[in-house]
Amino acid sequence: MADPRRVTAALIVIGNEILSGRTKDANLPYLAEQLNQRGIVLAEARVVRDEQDAIVAAVNACRTTFDYVFTTGGIGPTHDDITAAAVAAAFDRPLIRHPEAESMLRAFYERTGRELTAARLKMADTPEGATLIENRISTAPGFQVENVFVLAGIPSVMQAMFESLAGQLEGGAEVLSRTLSADIPEGTIAAGLQTLQDAFPGLEIGSYPYFSEGRPGASIVVRGIDKAQLDAAVERLRVLMLELGGAPVEGNRAG
Amino acid sequence: MADPRRVTAALIVIGNEILSGRTKDANLPYLAEQLNQRGIVLAEARVVRDEQDAIVAAVNACRTTFDYVFTTGGIGPTHDDITAAAVAAAFDRPLIRHPEAESMLRAFYERTGRELTAARLKMADTPEGATLIENRISTAPGFQVENVFVLAGIPSVMQAMFESLAGQLEGGAEVLSRTLSADIPEGTIAAGLQTLQDAFPGLEIGSYPYFSEGRPGASIVVRGIDKAQLDAAVERLRVLMLELGGAPVEGNRAG
Repeated sequence: MADPRRVTAALIVIGNEILSGRTKDANLPYLAEQLNQRGIVLAEARVVRDEQDAIVAAVNACRTTFDYVFTTGGIGPTHDDITAAAVAAAFDRPLIRHPEAESMLRAFYERTGRELTAARLKMADTPEGATLIENRISTAPGFQVENVFVLAGIPSVMQAMFESLAGQLEGGAEVLSRTLSADIPEGTIAAGLQTLQDAFPGLEIGSYPYFSEGRPGASIVVRGIDKAQLDAAVERLRVLMLELGGAPVEGNRAG
Repeated sequence: MADPRRVTAALIVIGNEILSGRTKDANLPYLAEQLNQRGIVLAEARVVRDEQDAIVAAVNACRTTFDYVFTTGGIGPTHDDITAAAVAAAFDRPLIRHPEAESMLRAFYERTGRELTAARLKMADTPEGATLIENRISTAPGFQVENVFVLAGIPSVMQAMFESLAGQLEGGAEVLSRTLSADIPEGTIAAGLQTLQDAFPGLEIGSYPYFSEGRPGASIVVRGIDKAQLDAAVERLRVLMLELGGAPVEGNRAG
């Protein structure tokens, strides 16, 4: 689907806690859906450790391959929060104390009566030339350098940051999606699906198996930006399912 | 933690359904825990689309960087199941019909009275020279080429495959973990944590914030292979938390 209107993004999840299995990432599904609504395809995701070399390698691989890159995690006040320094290294820019971010933190901690420790001030550090991303939940901002958007790992804060930057994203056409399900094993419908995919090269057809009361079935997801093509493919899919003895229903049944 | 006993692994999750947000990956947390028990660190994960170039790039980047690589997804009978062909391309080996896999599928479909369609036979295709990985759930096997293990995406099948291969994995020392939590904001404990990390460079100290009844706290996770070091660090952490007015409790409170 090498469409000129296809705009792509990558997500880099930063954090040992995800790779140890301790914390389940919740940012990928949110970002996938939000980007999709704006006509941006989440084309890859990576989960990397809190190690500068790993973050630099992922940021540099992704920012040259995809239109947008989002990182989550590693922007707090503790020693294991090294995302800002790593992104600075990836862009070969110095890490500076961002004056506007510092002012925001000073005002916030003055207002709340808590001490602005050196550790908390670290949250004002960004690569030189970064643009801040507002954090209306807990003040410490994210930031943007070129096509890389650095966001918090905590889902509520990540989502608030995304909402504040989303207006800037230029998407392509929204990817539409329809799903038909029927109690037909994948191995039975596979040949017909291949024919259907060949007939509609501009669409993406995915097959997801399920078991319902011990009987195998498949949910077939058809995605694309051309609504007429999408509807035509789904009608042919419905006929295919009927021919194979299935009772197609609109919607997903696979897990 | 450049420890000679550190054995590393990467996970490559293959599937548009994960990147569209439609399906939540459940294999990463399972694999992280299983590997950890065997002294293998899950050091990176990638989620890539059902596109050959993307799979080849990820497999080749990871198999030269990490001791073990696991892939999940894309080994079913339908047109969008291209993992075997992509892994063959990554190793520059021909894709062949594996005789043993074919025999297994023929016996299975004969026994169940279902038709062994061409699509189902595709599940016997592997790169030349691959070793099969048993699938006691639904027969169609995974396979191994050098340090790359190709597993199913459906969690129950993936887990059965992992269990059948796990005996072959050579791990390092098991990574032990202890966690102390206290109602101390990260910005308050950060300086002490940095000192602690500096004093125990062989351990990995992670800080995860939480809110409890509106009060900020932090769960501090200490991980390492040396139990004496680990226990010593945790005792120093306990003293640090008490000094900062917290009431440390063993265990995790962060989400």
